[in-house]
Amino acid sequence: MRTQVCIIGGGPSGLMLSHLLHRAGIDSIVLERRSREHVLGRIRAGVLERGTVAMLRDAGLSARMDAQGQPHSGTCLAVRNRGFRVDFEALTGAQVMVWGQTEVTADLYAARDAAGGRIVHEAEEVAIHDAGGTPHVTYRKDGAEHRVDCDWIAGCDGFHGVSRRTIPATVLRTVERVYPFGWLGVLSRTKPAAPELIYASHADGFALASMRSDTLSRYYIQAPTDDPLEKWTDAAFWDALRRRLPSEVAEAMEIGPSIEKSIAPLRSFVAEPMRWNRLFLVGDAAHIVPPTGAKGLNLAISDVAYLSDALIRHYGGEDDGIATYSDRALARVWKATRFSWWFTTLMHRFPEDGAFERRMKQAEIDYLEHSEAAQTVMAENYVGLPL
Amino acid sequence: MRTQVCIIGGGPSGLMLSHLLHRAGIDSIVLERRSREHVLGRIRAGVLERGTVAMLRDAGLSARMDAQGQPHSGTCLAVRNRGFRVDFEALTGAQVMVWGQTEVTADLYAARDAAGGRIVHEAEEVAIHDAGGTPHVTYRKDGAEHRVDCDWIAGCDGFHGVSRRTIPATVLRTVERVYPFGWLGVLSRTKPAAPELIYASHADGFALASMRSDTLSRYYIQAPTDDPLEKWTDAAFWDALRRRLPSEVAEAMEIGPSIEKSIAPLRSFVAEPMRWNRLFLVGDAAHIVPPTGAKGLNLAISDVAYLSDALIRHYGGEDDGIATYSDRALARVWKATRFSWWFTTLMHRFPEDGAFERRMKQAEIDYLEHSEAAQTVMAENYVGLPL
Repeated sequence: MRTQVCIIGGGPSGLMLSHLLHRAGIDSIVLERRSREHVLGRIRAGVLERGTVAMLRDAGLSARMDAQGQPHSGTCLAVRNRGFRVDFEALTGAQVMVWGQTEVTADLYAARDAAGGRIVHEAEEVAIHDAGGTPHVTYRKDGAEHRVDCDWIAGCDGFHGVSRRTIPATVLRTVERVYPFGWLGVLSRTKPAAPELIYASHADGFALASMRSDTLSRYYIQAPTDDPLEKWTDAAFWDALRRRLPSEVAEAMEIGPSIEKSIAPLRSFVAEPMRWNRLFLVGDAAHIVPPTGAKGLNLAISDVAYLSDALIRHYGGEDDGIATYSDRALARVWKATRFSWWFTTLMHRFPEDGAFERRMKQAEIDYLEHSEAAQTVMAENYVGLPL
Repeated sequence: MRTQVCIIGGGPSGLMLSHLLHRAGIDSIVLERRSREHVLGRIRAGVLERGTVAMLRDAGLSARMDAQGQPHSGTCLAVRNRGFRVDFEALTGAQVMVWGQTEVTADLYAARDAAGGRIVHEAEEVAIHDAGGTPHVTYRKDGAEHRVDCDWIAGCDGFHGVSRRTIPATVLRTVERVYPFGWLGVLSRTKPAAPELIYASHADGFALASMRSDTLSRYYIQAPTDDPLEKWTDAAFWDALRRRLPSEVAEAMEIGPSIEKSIAPLRSFVAEPMRWNRLFLVGDAAHIVPPTGAKGLNLAISDVAYLSDALIRHYGGEDDGIATYSDRALARVWKATRFSWWFTTLMHRFPEDGAFERRMKQAEIDYLEHSEAAQTVMAENYVGLPL
């Protein structure tokens, strides 16, 4: 097979890139290791930045989001059993959209299908060849070896994918921080505890009350990464969650059986550069943020914005977008990495925190409650820094 | 002797309190362990917040400051050999005043002398008695024991003073962070390197280019606290300083012999509560901040604002100022402690910083350069949060 851009990874960033290239008349093939059902079954992020929302609208992908998604104009921070609101709209003029990654992905599949896009699922043993010369990608499917010849390779295959590992260790620089706790997440068919998200700092640890819709709630609590999941019965989870939320919310909230429950580790990770010859890294393949502040999907989509622009300009005869892709993307990545690290550090209990560190976090939340400038810093990062 | 308020410590906070009480018709005696010459010879802070400036003006102490002090409407942050300006005045409408603590103290002595204020110097073995009942303070001077009976005791005697140590350990709670480095400071009769302060983050460590006047410069570099001072010849100091400042500044700056050189440790410390019965803690007696951001003297003066208000209202028949002094003062202390800790952490190299922490600091400085909201947070803290 031959294509202009071979995209490795059929999650939202790979599909979005394929969709945007198609609209500009550029051909691509998407190779995905898993089945479509598996990809669509993954429970992931659910808050879209203003820039992500604008891109989906510009790309003709917003009909369901605009009908069913929930625009949020603020969020609540809670500490010591009381909360205060950060009003994104008043502070920045922008909102965010509560709309699940699963839904974004479903709309992208539908759009690619409608346009006859080529997506290969269950492509195994994907390998990248000659990224510095005449690039091609090989994979196995149904027992046979396949080859895709291409001009460019976009590595949208996540943290564990092959793309980043293809870049020689002499070229790739990485920094990493693994946090000493994880997030235990529960999805339940219950009415959300509050109309907006509640980020709670508590002596027991962090908690987040979130949602996917009016009838689907998503809750998280800070928990040891190595806790056995069977320790966290539904009853134990709801008890722990409600202790950490403001009592007014905890007492009134609906609870019910979990329909998904898992513990995810928290990590900050950045790989540089994000281009090596004709291979680009996009999204989680290059960078991971902890979920606090919901930056992961949004960063992947802003990488796609830079890369689609670079490739479209390349095929229009201008190569400076290709040359600057890594620097442009990384400038935004580092800022979002900083925000996610700050917000994670502020709101969680770390085993190594002493009395001084705990008091500094308390003082920072108190300051945030009363300073419009500090709330604006949080708001402008939360709704998304400009591209 | 008998007085209404016995003030322990003849530095700027003790003198300022005595001055403000006198203007309200309240009698005080100031006990100072050192000689007046010693107090006036100490080289200390040199940047006054807007609130401190306003208090000095309201108290009739601003003639020399307004004639000779330097109003600064911004500061420069430098990293990777280039700088950017944070414009306090544009962001907050306020300036700070470069005017040395020594000068403030000299004006306070002059005002107390003119009013016939009682200041006892070289008062040794100061001891506080019966702070919960009928308070009195004893001290030795010229071989004799003296006693001051009073209604209230104000502990303005600094971190090492007797006042905080008088409060029982069962009452006093403290938190502390000692930073793993100090500041090597040099005073020189040279033209300042720049019209405004330059805070520089550098791979070798932090540097600060500051001044006391048009002809008197004050420079600091981050250095190990246990470095022997003889290691830091003038030549070694100037070399290290100039490497850390933007080269444009470093190449043009005037250097000369040091007229003072010392290494000071950096510490964050807060003691709570700030009142125990009839004893109040004021300034460094209750809290220490690292010098980054120049909060120490300003916090002492805002404590004096709260305490003088409380005592004046007490003698007017209202006791709620006494009851709330500790909480009011501490609310501001924690915010300034947070700011000083943040600014210190951001700008210094810590031995324990890994690649991730270094990149987060770099990302935060980059963000600060480009975000008006982030600059406003820095500016509103630097010029001083409202009382």
